[in-house]
Amino acid sequence: MSKVAIVMGSDSDLPVMQEAVDILKGFDIEVEVDIVSAHRTPEKLVDFSTNAHKRGISVIIAGAGGAAHLPGMVAAMSPLPVIGVPVKSSNSIDGWDSILSILQMPGGVPVATVALNGAKNAGILAAQIIGSADKCVLDKIVAYKEGLKLSVLEKAKKLKK
Amino acid sequence: MSKVAIVMGSDSDLPVMQEAVDILKGFDIEVEVDIVSAHRTPEKLVDFSTNAHKRGISVIIAGAGGAAHLPGMVAAMSPLPVIGVPVKSSNSIDGWDSILSILQMPGGVPVATVALNGAKNAGILAAQIIGSADKCVLDKIVAYKEGLKLSVLEKAKKLKK
Amino acid sequence: MSKVAIVMGSDSDLPVMQEAVDILKGFDIEVEVDIVSAHRTPEKLVDFSTNAHKRGISVIIAGAGGAAHLPGMVAAMSPLPVIGVPVKSSNSIDGWDSILSILQMPGGVPVATVALNGAKNAGILAAQIIGSADKCVLDKIVAYKEGLKLSVLEKAKKLKK
Amino acid sequence: MSKVAIVMGSDSDLPVMQEAVDILKGFDIEVEVDIVSAHRTPEKLVDFSTNAHKRGISVIIAGAGGAAHLPGMVAAMSPLPVIGVPVKSSNSIDGWDSILSILQMPGGVPVATVALNGAKNAGILAAQIIGSADKCVLDKIVAYKEGLKLSVLEKAKKLKK
Amino acid sequence: MSKVAIVMGSDSDLPVMQEAVDILKGFDIEVEVDIVSAHRTPEKLVDFSTNAHKRGISVIIAGAGGAAHLPGMVAAMSPLPVIGVPVKSSNSIDGWDSILSILQMPGGVPVATVALNGAKNAGILAAQIIGSADKCVLDKIVAYKEGLKLSVLEKAKKLKK
Amino acid sequence: MSKVAIVMGSDSDLPVMQEAVDILKGFDIEVEVDIVSAHRTPEKLVDFSTNAHKRGISVIIAGAGGAAHLPGMVAAMSPLPVIGVPVKSSNSIDGWDSILSILQMPGGVPVATVALNGAKNAGILAAQIIGSADKCVLDKIVAYKEGLKLSVLEKAKKLKK
Amino acid sequence: MSKVAIVMGSDSDLPVMQEAVDILKGFDIEVEVDIVSAHRTPEKLVDFSTNAHKRGISVIIAGAGGAAHLPGMVAAMSPLPVIGVPVKSSNSIDGWDSILSILQMPGGVPVATVALNGAKNAGILAAQIIGSADKCVLDKIVAYKEGLKLSVLEKAKKLKK
Amino acid sequence: MSKVAIVMGSDSDLPVMQEAVDILKGFDIEVEVDIVSAHRTPEKLVDFSTNAHKRGISVIIAGAGGAAHLPGMVAAMSPLPVIGVPVKSSNSIDGWDSILSILQMPGGVPVATVALNGAKNAGILAAQIIGSADKCVLDKIVAYKEGLKLSVLEKAKKLKK
Repeated sequence: MSKVAIVMGSDSDLPVMQEAVDILKGFDIEVEVDIVSAHRTPEKLVDFSTNAHKRGISVIIAGAGGAAHLPGMVAAMSPLPVIGVPVKSSNSIDGWDSILSILQMPGGVPVATVALNGAKNAGILAAQIIGSADKCVLDKIVAYKEGLKLSVLEKAKKLKK
Repeated sequence: MSKVAIVMGSDSDLPVMQEAVDILKGFDIEVEVDIVSAHRTPEKLVDFSTNAHKRGISVIIAGAGGAAHLPGMVAAMSPLPVIGVPVKSSNSIDGWDSILSILQMPGGVPVATVALNGAKNAGILAAQIIGSADKCVLDKIVAYKEGLKLSVLEKAKKLKK
Repeated sequence: MSKVAIVMGSDSDLPVMQEAVDILKGFDIEVEVDIVSAHRTPEKLVDFSTNAHKRGISVIIAGAGGAAHLPGMVAAMSPLPVIGVPVKSSNSIDGWDSILSILQMPGGVPVATVALNGAKNAGILAAQIIGSADKCVLDKIVAYKEGLKLSVLEKAKKLKK
Repeated sequence: MSKVAIVMGSDSDLPVMQEAVDILKGFDIEVEVDIVSAHRTPEKLVDFSTNAHKRGISVIIAGAGGAAHLPGMVAAMSPLPVIGVPVKSSNSIDGWDSILSILQMPGGVPVATVALNGAKNAGILAAQIIGSADKCVLDKIVAYKEGLKLSVLEKAKKLKK
Repeated sequence: MSKVAIVMGSDSDLPVMQEAVDILKGFDIEVEVDIVSAHRTPEKLVDFSTNAHKRGISVIIAGAGGAAHLPGMVAAMSPLPVIGVPVKSSNSIDGWDSILSILQMPGGVPVATVALNGAKNAGILAAQIIGSADKCVLDKIVAYKEGLKLSVLEKAKKLKK
Repeated sequence: MSKVAIVMGSDSDLPVMQEAVDILKGFDIEVEVDIVSAHRTPEKLVDFSTNAHKRGISVIIAGAGGAAHLPGMVAAMSPLPVIGVPVKSSNSIDGWDSILSILQMPGGVPVATVALNGAKNAGILAAQIIGSADKCVLDKIVAYKEGLKLSVLEKAKKLKK
Repeated sequence: MSKVAIVMGSDSDLPVMQEAVDILKGFDIEVEVDIVSAHRTPEKLVDFSTNAHKRGISVIIAGAGGAAHLPGMVAAMSPLPVIGVPVKSSNSIDGWDSILSILQMPGGVPVATVALNGAKNAGILAAQIIGSADKCVLDKIVAYKEGLKLSVLEKAKKLKK
Repeated sequence: MSKVAIVMGSDSDLPVMQEAVDILKGFDIEVEVDIVSAHRTPEKLVDFSTNAHKRGISVIIAGAGGAAHLPGMVAAMSPLPVIGVPVKSSNSIDGWDSILSILQMPGGVPVATVALNGAKNAGILAAQIIGSADKCVLDKIVAYKEGLKLSVLEKAKKLKK
């Protein structure tokens, strides 16, 4: 069964990254969560990145703020799809630093970047990646999108009253 | 067998998007290429997006410039993972418009955004997504990354002489 | 009689968009308000946009935040003038994302963009559009501008004391 | 019959603004073109703006670069809908100055802003404004959009070959 | 005797602009304060700008936020030096809109722009302008700068303890 | 008689700064031109700045690119009005660095900033500063503005043909 | 023994700059702290900068906000390595002004710039500079980095529980 | 004797980085040059970074473009001072991506960032770092700065003629 690894550069990123955990659990997808700092635990970074695909991980979600090197460095050492979540940290320059550090990867080493603080979408994207080869998860995505639609239609109905 | 659909908003995006085609062909992954304009062919957009997963497509790559709505609108209507390529078009404001229009999707509808003009990385990411469930493609990614490394080491050797 | 449709991508946009409703009611112009999410209710988007001009709507005001595709997608499918209101939503990057997603439309599909959170001005602009062919509404605009002037002159008088 | 006035701050804006003239002529809408500099001919600005609606003008298109005050100042003095075209002039800072000077109008005085150098879209928007009360022009807009669609479909067909 | 006119686009700018009043009074320079809205009281704008130099005004300070046209429009119609103060208003985009609207004036019509919310510096600059031809005011500027220095040296001394 | 000192950080700024020289000569105002680098000739900077007002200089124009400290440092040491010209140099980041380095001066030490590469406007502003106390120069400014107007009206006439 | 001088443009920078003092004391490196304003105490600036290396200072840390000229001006007059700390002051434009004023120094006069409000990193960098020639300090840096690693690993362990 | 290691992410950075080599050779400081790609040769990155200080390197200069992770990752694994050079590469967004990826490092892991493409200044800074403990190199820096001054004074003299 597919499994998603969610890593973040600091425990201060947890409030944002928790949304990825929650949405994936809602899709009954197994997750593991860890703190891996590109700048403070580089050995752990190497170990995690080079081995993830050997341990049954299918997709990696990596969140970080400021000069956010974690997603790109994981992508450098893993053949798996890596989803990057730019986190708006305290001394960040409105989030521009984390967005550009994650998005603007050089040719050969992509990171699938989502919106600033978009951990929920990172989780959904991970599910979609699994769903692209797993009919059962794909159906859950279809149902989830149907739910989004109904929720909006419900709100529209309330507004009209 | 997995197949990747590559769509773009205008034929002027083709020079950039061709890199996605080429890299995927290099991985022996089947691709189909089409022009789908969110703003000029909305019916085709709906038709393409709602049916892609029923036609055996596994991953969608969508490239567009300016107020780039194509990737997000495809993602709105397809359960598949959608990779967005911001294209730096002629009247773009240094590419900021296409980047932000693609990246900053609302909760529920992710787009896996790559770097400005990063179609090559979009292709690699699509391969990685397929590879996350297909050992044979995963091995090709591993080999590709090994090739990147060797090429850099070769250049470093030349530099030292 | 002319009628303005005001749509928004989420009910969280309502506090901003309400100003468009209020100012139009002040001009005795009929309004209808609805939630239409480009990303979560794409069928409703198609239905609304392709039919608005057949239902007696003269002008459409569409507000959205982040990667704001609603105004542009409505404009893609309606022949009516569409006014776009960039909304500064919670995870927005200072509003730049919604501004550029709405403003930088490609050739052929304009959106009449107003200032960030400028729903009041969207309402006035809708009234001006109606007034461009309706002498009675034009006169109200003239009177409204006269009122703006008097209010400033009044404040200037107070300041001088 | 409706008429559109197209004004610009400098004759150096003409190459950009000509697109508005051309598209409107294509819709058989009468246009008049003039140079009105907010900063160098302020009396002409006052005269033009306060009288346009008395001379049978229905919509005003104003283009300017840099600290672009023309569209906003015309809007300050005219009850007509004013469409602003930010022009990327030579010493402009990537167009940000003209965009923000035109877009960010205060409450009470809207300018319908289009994309950087988007004079063609300004022309289409002016036609849509006229079409919102003129069935004949509305039909032309519908036909124009149909043409856009066919042109994209044609290009898509070529690409597939 | 020289006199400085301080105008602002809205009474909401007063808390910022008051600093210009205070510093000029500290230099014993006569000031007059008024609200002149480029967009809401264009006739007053014309009247104020064309006559200021005839009424004994030597320098004009104009503050405004958002698409800030007041300083530039005053400069368009007055031969006097005009100092522009970009005000960071509520819906401003971090002040970029007012800065660029005031700073990026076209050739022929300068505005002496100071920092965001820099009304105090606008007052000092006005005094320096007067002082460039008035030895008595120049001496006050010299003394003011000496005071700045002493205040910093005093703080440095405290820090060392 | 009044005299304007024009200094620049590098001889590579001369093509831009020459416009200030030319316009001032056109107003028959005496100028002196020099290279004073804040970073490479700090002693000359101190000497120039502390003595300018003792040598009969009335206004200082200082142009520099990148981290442009020259205008602000001159202003720190001179009681005269200092006009800063942000120059878009080769490795500049689109001019943002020089604009912000010159504009955002702290309270107490204003620099009258003009547009990017706006040396011509710096010259006009210097003339206006002199003109604020010198009726003869003021009249030249009035005439200059009249010339601007006539030139625009002339171009408008040509356009209409 | 090596000594680090920490200067700042205003006492309002002290809360940020204190972190540099604290971390250096933690490395048992001697520090001296002073307020030196480039704009308000230029003589002290010259005196400090030209003499620091003669008084046994090895490294200079300079922090400032807005148009931050202090680090660059110190670097202009001292042969020592100068570390610049951009401080996000109250009227700063999100810190962009201080970053660009410090970072974008011209060829010949480098400033070692750290992150916005990054005084702690400035202190560590100063220690690293001393450590590059002092084995004892280098060992402390190695130990400090080891401590960072252990702290992250500890947090990761807690998260897993 | 002190030695500086200069590494870059790609051989396309060499034209920019060569300036660091040249200036250091001018100071008779030994340099070694290599290509180390954080993303394509991560093992070499680890090897280089963890061993540099054991091989007699005193200072590291690292240049990279786009999402530039090389300088920060080297700094993560080396106790030496690391100087980062943001390189404006072909698909860079005006250099903002490389600047922010290098500058905005988290607390604990500083990178001494210089201006965009500022490799020459990186070389001078490396020399200053060595000079802070090596009187002979310090004297060369003093002489170099004297040379800068004379060159500017020479140009000023020419200008005056």
